[in-house]
Amino acid sequence: MARINENFLKLPGSYLFSEVAKRRKAYAKEHPEADLISLGIGDVTLPLTPTAVSALHKGADEMSRKETFKGYGPEQGYAFLRSDIARVDFGYRGVRIEPDEIFISDGSKSDTGNIGDIFSPDNIVAVCDPVYPVYIDTNAMAGRAGNYDHETGKWDRLVYASGTPDNDFVPDVPELYGDDAPDMIYLCFPNNPTGTVATRRQLKKWVDYALENEAVILFDAAYEAYITDQEIPHSIYEIPGATECAIEFRSFSKNAGFTGLRCSYTVIPKALEVGGVSLNSLWNRRHNTKFNGTPYIVQLAADSVYTPDGAAQTQALVDHYLENAGIIRAGLEEAGYSVWGGVNSPYVWLRTIDGMSSWEFFDYLLKELNIVGTPGSGFGPSGAGYFRLTGFGSRENTLRAVERIKKGKLV
Amino acid sequence: MARINENFLKLPGSYLFSEVAKRRKAYAKEHPEADLISLGIGDVTLPLTPTAVSALHKGADEMSRKETFKGYGPEQGYAFLRSDIARVDFGYRGVRIEPDEIFISDGSKSDTGNIGDIFSPDNIVAVCDPVYPVYIDTNAMAGRAGNYDHETGKWDRLVYASGTPDNDFVPDVPELYGDDAPDMIYLCFPNNPTGTVATRRQLKKWVDYALENEAVILFDAAYEAYITDQEIPHSIYEIPGATECAIEFRSFSKNAGFTGLRCSYTVIPKALEVGGVSLNSLWNRRHNTKFNGTPYIVQLAADSVYTPDGAAQTQALVDHYLENAGIIRAGLEEAGYSVWGGVNSPYVWLRTIDGMSSWEFFDYLLKELNIVGTPGSGFGPSGAGYFRLTGFGSRENTLRAVERIKKGKLV
Repeated sequence: MARINENFLKLPGSYLFSEVAKRRKAYAKEHPEADLISLGIGDVTLPLTPTAVSALHKGADEMSRKETFKGYGPEQGYAFLRSDIARVDFGYRGVRIEPDEIFISDGSKSDTGNIGDIFSPDNIVAVCDPVYPVYIDTNAMAGRAGNYDHETGKWDRLVYASGTPDNDFVPDVPELYGDDAPDMIYLCFPNNPTGTVATRRQLKKWVDYALENEAVILFDAAYEAYITDQEIPHSIYEIPGATECAIEFRSFSKNAGFTGLRCSYTVIPKALEVGGVSLNSLWNRRHNTKFNGTPYIVQLAADSVYTPDGAAQTQALVDHYLENAGIIRAGLEEAGYSVWGGVNSPYVWLRTIDGMSSWEFFDYLLKELNIVGTPGSGFGPSGAGYFRLTGFGSRENTLRAVERIKKGKLV
Repeated sequence: MARINENFLKLPGSYLFSEVAKRRKAYAKEHPEADLISLGIGDVTLPLTPTAVSALHKGADEMSRKETFKGYGPEQGYAFLRSDIARVDFGYRGVRIEPDEIFISDGSKSDTGNIGDIFSPDNIVAVCDPVYPVYIDTNAMAGRAGNYDHETGKWDRLVYASGTPDNDFVPDVPELYGDDAPDMIYLCFPNNPTGTVATRRQLKKWVDYALENEAVILFDAAYEAYITDQEIPHSIYEIPGATECAIEFRSFSKNAGFTGLRCSYTVIPKALEVGGVSLNSLWNRRHNTKFNGTPYIVQLAADSVYTPDGAAQTQALVDHYLENAGIIRAGLEEAGYSVWGGVNSPYVWLRTIDGMSSWEFFDYLLKELNIVGTPGSGFGPSGAGYFRLTGFGSRENTLRAVERIKKGKLV
């Protein structure tokens, strides 16, 4: 008699964004005249760059002729893309990463989820709180999270590193050492949802902690392109020792706007060993066995980011969203809100007013100002009483939403 | 201290196709003048159809304009593709599958590998032997296969249903019932590597067995487009009761030539429950959490298969490979070989001659006839003494290779 993976049944039901969509839809149905502005999504809205589009057309043409047709590619990705990534994304920052330490994939969501395959289900997992829900949910599915406590909103086998105003939402290492220390540590900087970034000194503390406790850091750098501050590291590998304790996830979604095109990559340095076993070789085996490569034409488009034109066009996309985030941040501050992020990040994190809960504030924004955002509590217990807005909307809507917030009414 | 998933270390080292590539490369280096013909690969060689290429161009254009740009799509796939699949691939055959029972993905290798996530690691797995190695390797990674015995070439926790000349390489249900019966049963028809197909009666026996033992059938139908015999089912769901016990995997790789474009789908009927839990809802949760959708432009290209022009062009690709397989089969028979497959399948399966092992026959073909094929033993212990050739080469090379085999020498 077949049995299911019972861990799936432990996952709490309703998912953040579906609840957001439900409330929005209900309101729009009752108020068909309402001019709703969404600053809630983490999805890009500007089209692909001309260089990426040209690459797609070129790739489609190649696929149409026998001489240039591409069937199965290397599971790990084409050499042209892996070598450009190594040269530009790491080499230009003084970090030495070899092409065979890079695995091209179809998304950071897939990779941050699937990476658990190569780890023991017994490992203790640490996450920052609030956090991108995928880290927790995928570990819950694998049985590493234990049981969910509906009272506290926490899993009883996870270690939570809380982000609070006191640490400016950049959590410190947990005060556990030796046998009690976490084995797998998920970090995401620039952070989703708080928009905060970690300094070199802060990241070094995590790296040192991981090395000391023989833990592995799973570093999600999907938003690194938004870093403008010269002092903030883009890669965990800018920290000495990180190649021996960290896996890094990168994506083309939020810089080149590939959320609908799907390309990402994962870096596993060959220096990274666990119990004497190379994680690079384990992931390589996983990739070969459970993945058949990212579409050739998508890899061509991703590679266009590394041309001079492509780089400039991609930067223009990032700048646009960054400016939106800056406008939101400035407007919120002017309106008296406590705000984090919005600099070096497309995300703006704010404290609700009048002691409202995250969902009360959601309803306030929706019903009073016709703005859709994302309740902070959806990202974990430490997000309660906070709220996320994003710079991914259009400039016009961003400006109009900020006017409404500043005036505290529809304008 | 982090620990790895120790199951990875149990996987036997060298992989079939890398060993094939190694021997081929070594021979080519020693004999640079050799005119090697490959009939070994399972990869297509003809370009994409004009309708698929047009769809890619159209999609690229849409992605270039703000008004038509697509960001994150539904993780499960766009409604246009899911409904066309339901209507054509199933509806036209009298099978009722709803669009929300279909999950678009990036490949059957991913899906047949990842599907294990929703099952308990305790389940007993049955595989046919010989078999596509991914079913075994992914279950070994999840701990369901037990330990590998290098002597027998078998895993000690797997149930093997052997394909032999006696059953025409269509294995019968294992003689185990009740508590001893397998919980998850991988079937692949038309079969890779043997090219054999299962009749309605044979499939019904498997379905009845699964229903009786509350097992789940994982039915890989990646090659269904090659079925020309009207009596052979294309889908497991043509068998009564299968919607209550079977998951089906389909792919655009081998019909529309998408091996480098990546699109597939998995069907999980809502009637399929395990222990009262819907597998459709578990997989939906898995898909939402660990996958972010197949590229929009790739889904557009896949959907072009369901237009009249696209269907005709896709059929022409299949016919070409089928004719190649027929040519290989006829030539082998003329040369006195025992042959299976090559009808309703791009694969031709043959018994080696003169008592050669699969690898001895590989070396014979490589060195004497300059033909590259695939040793049957690479697909499991029951493949020992057998060999796989494929119809995916060019017509010219196929004809030349067959001449060499018939003459038993280079011609």
